[in-house]
Amino acid sequence: MLFTSLKTEQMQPMTEASAIQQNHRGDARICRGCWDQMHMPIPIRGPLALPFRAFGITRSKMNPNICTICERSFRYVKKQSHVAASATILFADIRGFTHLSERIERMRLSEIVSLFQDRCAQAIWAHDGIVNKTMGDGLMAIFNFPIIRKDHADAAIRAALDIQKHCADALGRLDFAGLGDAPLGVGVGIHSGEVEIGEFSTFRSDFTAIGGTVNLASRLESQAEAGEILISAETASEAGDLVSNAATRLLSLKGIDLPVEARVLATH
Amino acid sequence: MLFTSLKTEQMQPMTEASAIQQNHRGDARICRGCWDQMHMPIPIRGPLALPFRAFGITRSKMNPNICTICERSFRYVKKQSHVAASATILFADIRGFTHLSERIERMRLSEIVSLFQDRCAQAIWAHDGIVNKTMGDGLMAIFNFPIIRKDHADAAIRAALDIQKHCADALGRLDFAGLGDAPLGVGVGIHSGEVEIGEFSTFRSDFTAIGGTVNLASRLESQAEAGEILISAETASEAGDLVSNAATRLLSLKGIDLPVEARVLATH
Repeated sequence: MLFTSLKTEQMQPMTEASAIQQNHRGDARICRGCWDQMHMPIPIRGPLALPFRAFGITRSKMNPNICTICERSFRYVKKQSHVAASATILFADIRGFTHLSERIERMRLSEIVSLFQDRCAQAIWAHDGIVNKTMGDGLMAIFNFPIIRKDHADAAIRAALDIQKHCADALGRLDFAGLGDAPLGVGVGIHSGEVEIGEFSTFRSDFTAIGGTVNLASRLESQAEAGEILISAETASEAGDLVSNAATRLLSLKGIDLPVEARVLATH
Repeated sequence: MLFTSLKTEQMQPMTEASAIQQNHRGDARICRGCWDQMHMPIPIRGPLALPFRAFGITRSKMNPNICTICERSFRYVKKQSHVAASATILFADIRGFTHLSERIERMRLSEIVSLFQDRCAQAIWAHDGIVNKTMGDGLMAIFNFPIIRKDHADAAIRAALDIQKHCADALGRLDFAGLGDAPLGVGVGIHSGEVEIGEFSTFRSDFTAIGGTVNLASRLESQAEAGEILISAETASEAGDLVSNAATRLLSLKGIDLPVEARVLATH
């Protein structure tokens, strides 16, 4: 009976329009990652989700439309296995935060970090990415795993544009009297390519992506000024219209021998 | 009855010698964080731990001698509250990893990251720190929260020395034929001061430390060469003998106006 009910549930979000609509409302009824990776319908909302919850299968903190199984969903689910995946990696952090953290009280810092993390998460989820790591005033997101999006380069850039817009709105409303003109904005770096996805320590179940793709995305982010999105040539070539008017910048990045050409979207 | 048994359990690890001994074996029977923060004996090993486990209270992935309550233990445990704490923050990452990640296959990268994460965690736990964040080829550890160590500066430096030793042993055994002389080693940065500890996003229960202290530790780490431990003046002044022979280096760090003087322990 459970299985029949699951099948019924499963049909609903699979029509494309409703899936997108549901996702944007942040309330898919079956786990979108388990469906995309394994074609397995795992209820994450509604009464059918209750028995699963009893076994610890709940909505993921990384994206509320996926579940805790598929947070670590590999094609063959087993401990210490890794899979190769084609993905787009996005890094974002608050520019000027180190400077700021020496000047204002810690409670205000907490407020800024909370605003930033929440605005970024909403933007990333709206485009089917997951917030894989948060690190104080920064974060790392993965697109195309476990929720599959063929247009993951495009999705990541749209998420970055939303991050810039929503963070500028939120941070702009804060009052930093006495701080002078220290700019407070967000820098974003995006790169697409092959990554290795898995759990890379035996002591914690904490899946992530590693590889040159991840490091390049991180390096790009470190070079982005407040309000900028730096996009690698690989991501740009898949993204089409979104970057057609973007400027080009040649960057010398730590640990990378040749200069890297990036496209620059300046949002304010 | 339960309470009486807890009292009995509680007595045992509280004699200092046995507490240290048990900790070094990684098998404290009550949560050391809950004890230090709230004087509450929470069983994490043995039959008394079973009923707690049924309610989701288990050993933490950040340190096996603390529990999932005190992973987020604040003096007043409540959602979205932050506490100020005096702590030592340690950052470590693999030097040359970006360079390496462009040259070797991803499966080998996974192996290196796993070795690094596991060796670091063992070293950090042995000195009562927690592995608060892992980020691919890097990590962040906190000392003096939730397990209280008055000598947290000292504990962090000793952990760093162990990290360098154990990683050098492990990474040295790997065979990177054809890679030339790209150095593979670990860089560590350590700084002590006030931090704000809490959960800074409404969407995930993911406690961490933020503030200028954290950012300076991270910046120090970014300047450490393979095999080096860079220690701030604040940490060094509390650590005594361990750094008495260390060299001094003046650093210009991103986001920090004045040059920063650091002590340098070179381990190989």
